[in-house]
Amino acid sequence: MFDLYGTLVDPLDVVSTLGEVIPGDEAADVAALWRRTQLDYAFRLTLMGRYRTFEWVTARALDHALDATGHDLADEVRRALLQAYDRLALYPDVRPALELLVERGHDCYVLSNGSPGMLRRSLESAGLTGFFSGWISVDEVGAFKPAPQVYRHAGEVIGRVVTSMRMVSCNPFDVVGAAAAGMRTAWVNRSGRPFDRIGERPDLMGSDLVDLAHRITAVSA
Amino acid sequence: MFDLYGTLVDPLDVVSTLGEVIPGDEAADVAALWRRTQLDYAFRLTLMGRYRTFEWVTARALDHALDATGHDLADEVRRALLQAYDRLALYPDVRPALELLVERGHDCYVLSNGSPGMLRRSLESAGLTGFFSGWISVDEVGAFKPAPQVYRHAGEVIGRVVTSMRMVSCNPFDVVGAAAAGMRTAWVNRSGRPFDRIGERPDLMGSDLVDLAHRITAVSA
Repeated sequence: MFDLYGTLVDPLDVVSTLGEVIPGDEAADVAALWRRTQLDYAFRLTLMGRYRTFEWVTARALDHALDATGHDLADEVRRALLQAYDRLALYPDVRPALELLVERGHDCYVLSNGSPGMLRRSLESAGLTGFFSGWISVDEVGAFKPAPQVYRHAGEVIGRVVTSMRMVSCNPFDVVGAAAAGMRTAWVNRSGRPFDRIGERPDLMGSDLVDLAHRITAVSA
Repeated sequence: MFDLYGTLVDPLDVVSTLGEVIPGDEAADVAALWRRTQLDYAFRLTLMGRYRTFEWVTARALDHALDATGHDLADEVRRALLQAYDRLALYPDVRPALELLVERGHDCYVLSNGSPGMLRRSLESAGLTGFFSGWISVDEVGAFKPAPQVYRHAGEVIGRVVTSMRMVSCNPFDVVGAAAAGMRTAWVNRSGRPFDRIGERPDLMGSDLVDLAHRITAVSA
């Protein structure tokens, strides 16, 4: 079970599109605040018992990041930024890792906060659809990760007990959430950051997805 | 109904204690990350259906902020920082605003994510206990703001319908959450930031608490 944003594709890749309208350093700050606000909004909506699609959340988070950094971009520029979110760059370790896992007989899925449309467009743009048996959007549940019902829903869709599935994510909140729902976990830590201080530690850790794919095949052998 | 952290006392005031062990600019970054992580952890625990006291959350958030910024402080320094969290500086507009509201017959309470002990210690240290008819901790509910059950619980404790109460907060997430639960709202925006992009706009806004207290007495007249 693979997370999408941050694990397969890079949400900070929007910097290249932002950089066309905002100077370099500032573009990186806006991109980071956009991503942080996107997660903050998704978490808060879910804990308030409300739901909006990730497309809505992503658009509102961009508006807030621009407000908060004093940028006023034209509507067509905002639309182009949201379209860039559907064509985010793939990390270089993703394809070889998925090739290894599929070759070893692992059944791979995507479980993402993205809406079904965002998921389909991202995976198609990245040329990844062939590696996955399917992709599951939290939209089917009406709550965002790390709500426990999202991980349980993934088990129901696939017809497997949740304890036999493994969540692979770069996002500590996702690793902690999946573990809390009973899944095994694997954390991709490309940037050498410290892990989270709440919840379970990951069962497996790797500095990139290829490293992690080898560890996954080793424990499954 | 007053929020505590950020509304009555300044959570970034820990910079003065942090500044004794970490150079000035960095201390401000650590304090900001500490506060952001504290809220992130509170939100995520609640949406995962888990609960820990705000003391636990605050200590873990400090550990993460230190990890993430590459600081390794001795245990006694960490303890001193957590103790400083119970003696945060009062904003200068708080006392005159509360004097005005109490004089005009408003019944004031505190509704905070802080544990009962944190709340009591903060209000005593700030000399504010005399202004309030009571203080309500989310600990009684086992979920953090902005979960709707927290605001409803406050109404039950006080014996008033939630629509007749007003949440006064500097935190946009609190204003949005209170409105979603049916409360009237007032947003203190001391720093001139943009408001949130999800949920209801505040019913009243003020650049400080005195300004806001005048607006509250005006609409209640």
